[in-house]
Amino acid sequence: MSAQSSLIDHATALIGFDELVGLLHAVFVKHGTSPEAAAILAHNCASAERDGAHSHGIFRIPGYLSTLASGWVDGNATPVVTDVASGFVRVDACNGFAQPALAAARALLIEKARSAGIALLAIHNSHHFAALWPDVEPFAEEGLVALSVVNSMTCVVPHGADRPLFGTNPIAFAAPRADGAPIVFDLATSAIAHGDVQIAARKGERLPPGMGVDSLGQPTTDPKAVLEGGALLPFGGHKGSALSMMVELLAAALTGGNFSFEFNWADHPGARTPWTGQLLIVIDPSKTAGQSFAERSQELVRQMHAAGLRRLPGDRRHRTRAKSLQEGITVEAQALAQLRDWAL
Amino acid sequence: MSAQSSLIDHATALIGFDELVGLLHAVFVKHGTSPEAAAILAHNCASAERDGAHSHGIFRIPGYLSTLASGWVDGNATPVVTDVASGFVRVDACNGFAQPALAAARALLIEKARSAGIALLAIHNSHHFAALWPDVEPFAEEGLVALSVVNSMTCVVPHGADRPLFGTNPIAFAAPRADGAPIVFDLATSAIAHGDVQIAARKGERLPPGMGVDSLGQPTTDPKAVLEGGALLPFGGHKGSALSMMVELLAAALTGGNFSFEFNWADHPGARTPWTGQLLIVIDPSKTAGQSFAERSQELVRQMHAAGLRRLPGDRRHRTRAKSLQEGITVEAQALAQLRDWAL
Repeated sequence: MSAQSSLIDHATALIGFDELVGLLHAVFVKHGTSPEAAAILAHNCASAERDGAHSHGIFRIPGYLSTLASGWVDGNATPVVTDVASGFVRVDACNGFAQPALAAARALLIEKARSAGIALLAIHNSHHFAALWPDVEPFAEEGLVALSVVNSMTCVVPHGADRPLFGTNPIAFAAPRADGAPIVFDLATSAIAHGDVQIAARKGERLPPGMGVDSLGQPTTDPKAVLEGGALLPFGGHKGSALSMMVELLAAALTGGNFSFEFNWADHPGARTPWTGQLLIVIDPSKTAGQSFAERSQELVRQMHAAGLRRLPGDRRHRTRAKSLQEGITVEAQALAQLRDWAL
Repeated sequence: MSAQSSLIDHATALIGFDELVGLLHAVFVKHGTSPEAAAILAHNCASAERDGAHSHGIFRIPGYLSTLASGWVDGNATPVVTDVASGFVRVDACNGFAQPALAAARALLIEKARSAGIALLAIHNSHHFAALWPDVEPFAEEGLVALSVVNSMTCVVPHGADRPLFGTNPIAFAAPRADGAPIVFDLATSAIAHGDVQIAARKGERLPPGMGVDSLGQPTTDPKAVLEGGALLPFGGHKGSALSMMVELLAAALTGGNFSFEFNWADHPGARTPWTGQLLIVIDPSKTAGQSFAERSQELVRQMHAAGLRRLPGDRRHRTRAKSLQEGITVEAQALAQLRDWAL
């Protein structure tokens, strides 16, 4: 690669959040989603890019388009919401994306959580290809506590096993606090997120040790060896592995969705999105005894800082978000040009 | 220590489960708990011993007696149950143990979970000094899925901080399955459970690396250095630390209980039990779409074994339990003699 093309490859451009949402909306509609689904996915993807969560930002668009083109996922699906019980909502995503299914059930879920004190949303027959924090953060912005898990596709070797079985199976949590943005985290139960392995492979970087194995099950720091027949390890040994197993049980067994190892996309070349399930639990902390929850969570944050913690989970995202909203979102010029092409 | 006394120290005896429960019941009543609380705590402690969970078995009795003698916990407390909403039960443990508070609310919690599909139990003003799995396993035996978290006392340094703040803050989960005992795990969000550090110190063993720091914040493998002014680390770096933070928010902020750093037992020499809160979430999986949950969780177990996993979380406990129920529970003769003394 010449110095010239290297410069061109890495040139960046700035784009406003609303403009990026609009561009992504056009891309999604152009490639086979309904305008409703496009609006939700575009906002989700642009939010990740805005917050510096690059592995779930526009980096994901080729995967979305590939999977839509393959006929594996239905971009026009209309989710079917069932009011099962006073704390239990079920959504059949009808082979569409999980985010429109959540959006379709969201008002009912919140109503139930505020009335019953806690409510559960079980999404099945769904494809989740995005970060998980955008699914929980908005609940905390409305004063609710939210927890979500989603299973994905076989790429993690259970602790003590020989072969991969679990997905990266993230857990996301959001809670309101009195004097600041909600406390939010989103953690893969794998030692590293799959998207970060892909990014490392693209950049030619090595992985830290302990993240993955190659196709022979041997430890490797080569992201390509992990992606080409290898697998990831769970984070934190047997404990992370137990949590990943819990995610399979909650996101698949409890929703009626597929386990990470159950779907077969062999007849859909180009398919990229795991066809599984997702669980959300939303709690109304106003039912708590004593002081307000938001005051209490603020006190925890205060004490975490007093113990020497400089950065809370989510802090970096919020700083990047503020910068992006003020100055625009920095994206690679080439990627932006590609998006504009795809939108035509 | 002579060879003679060493032999005596390590002599073992066998005791039946019911006999151990009866003996522990007498010990608790003798040292200031109500017969109701004694029955619950004795069953809990004997169950841990029966299952080989030694750090939460009779090893804990001196701590229970010390804390009862100090006046820090009320062994005669009568928990006050409040029916807050269709999915939300609150219990004020009234400065008693958490297990009797759970027992007092259990029937209402199950009724709500079966009706609403999900229900939450928020216990505050409570002391939890036992393993967490005995709190969730019985729900799975009734076909329900249960999750519980409890915060404890400052002994874990948040990832990226300088000083300890969180407790060992365990997460326990239980789910039914079709052809076997429930799937159950109970994991401290610290790299090692506090009880296991105490046992290592007593036995003169070293800890594995990465478990704790000394009083200067330096890594150490000496359990005594951890116990004497040092602290534990979270498991799995920033991810385990985020989960530990979540436990503080759910078990304390959401229940109305104390954070792990809030209570002050300075006026109660001998106090050992963290005065905090506990959260339980119970889900009725019969509300799930599609096949029965227990059949699905059985399928997951089958696939985990097919992937080369020999031991599920909880398997060792179940094997030890079966052996204990058949042959009796093996305990140190000296410890058994001590229990008999304490019961007089």
